[in-house]
Amino acid sequence: MGPLISSAERDALYKIIYSHRDVRGEFLPDPVSDEVLQRILHAAHHAPSVGFMQPWDFIVVRDLEIRKEIKKGFEIAHREAALMFPEEKREQYRSFKLEGIAEAPLGICVTCDRKRSGDVVIGRTANPEMDLYSSVCAVQNLWLAARAENLGVGWVSIIQHDHIRNVLGIPGDIVPVAWLCVGYVSFFHETPELEQAKWLPRLELGTLIHREQWGGNAT
Amino acid sequence: MGPLISSAERDALYKIIYSHRDVRGEFLPDPVSDEVLQRILHAAHHAPSVGFMQPWDFIVVRDLEIRKEIKKGFEIAHREAALMFPEEKREQYRSFKLEGIAEAPLGICVTCDRKRSGDVVIGRTANPEMDLYSSVCAVQNLWLAARAENLGVGWVSIIQHDHIRNVLGIPGDIVPVAWLCVGYVSFFHETPELEQAKWLPRLELGTLIHREQWGGNAT
Repeated sequence: MGPLISSAERDALYKIIYSHRDVRGEFLPDPVSDEVLQRILHAAHHAPSVGFMQPWDFIVVRDLEIRKEIKKGFEIAHREAALMFPEEKREQYRSFKLEGIAEAPLGICVTCDRKRSGDVVIGRTANPEMDLYSSVCAVQNLWLAARAENLGVGWVSIIQHDHIRNVLGIPGDIVPVAWLCVGYVSFFHETPELEQAKWLPRLELGTLIHREQWGGNAT
Repeated sequence: MGPLISSAERDALYKIIYSHRDVRGEFLPDPVSDEVLQRILHAAHHAPSVGFMQPWDFIVVRDLEIRKEIKKGFEIAHREAALMFPEEKREQYRSFKLEGIAEAPLGICVTCDRKRSGDVVIGRTANPEMDLYSSVCAVQNLWLAARAENLGVGWVSIIQHDHIRNVLGIPGDIVPVAWLCVGYVSFFHETPELEQAKWLPRLELGTLIHREQWGGNAT
């Protein structure tokens, strides 16, 4: 039948969702045990996946030298990114702390093997991106599980795929989906840092809900 | 500081993750209250997003006629899909129940507005797919929140984007990311249905974990 979830259990999920942050600057060097690591990877592996293909792999990097190589890819992509912003935004962009690759004791690369279960996959026929989306569901499960273990996670997307492939020896047909920095933290921010910095406001949920059709008024 | 998560709260998350299913055939017609709907949309809206762009919208469809129009898109794409499978798999593919669009009382289309916060987005510069991935994180939050409310959710990906755009009047530059069927259920399956049907096995987690490098042995 599947278990009934109690209201206390439901509220625990909401507490985890609402206190969950993208962590960049608050990582502590404290080691993450293999037991905790296994629990968060197990939760990631139980994400839903299109056609049950489970297209993900998890490359767990503890070695600091390898993480420093990954960080070089961030530095290159970050310099390039700064120049894309209009001049008046550039200095603020550069002032943000956007990764904790070397400080967090653990890096986890989540990938997508698009050939995992053959060329034809149930549910991927009309929308070929569905396997990538499945790996993202695994990332989000891992992220929430980590928060539930009082671990911080930061997703660093300012790195070219090929840089990650080269450093980790990932075959060309495997897609890196996320580089995650994982570790205990000194604190979790009360609200997202880009909201605190007034880079962008939290949108009003009511403006994002449409009734029956695009543009349908909220009731 | 961000709240500490207790071990009971952590275990609640794991219970939700492990009993979470992609629901197709067990929807009940019982209505979903606006209060519960608001809670799951609020949880979705608090997913992490690249550069805090919050690119998602939620089109909530209760109207059965509109859902029947969406279902026509599934029927077309499903017929096309069957022909892509090798002949010996085709009959089994056709035998699967893959959607509950008309039976579930609620459809929710989650989209991605790629221009939401301008052309240059923090974290999307090297990896332009990151905004789509953010909408997927919102879907996964919604899915887990729904399970915590004892609601089933099924993600139907066997529909062309343009069909969804046409039926719901979605502008051409907004990307439909997911069509979700949402409702109470008669039961949740113990394990994923495609696993039960021996379409594919659950992979051994240990084979998916690499240490330090791709192919690095588990320890």
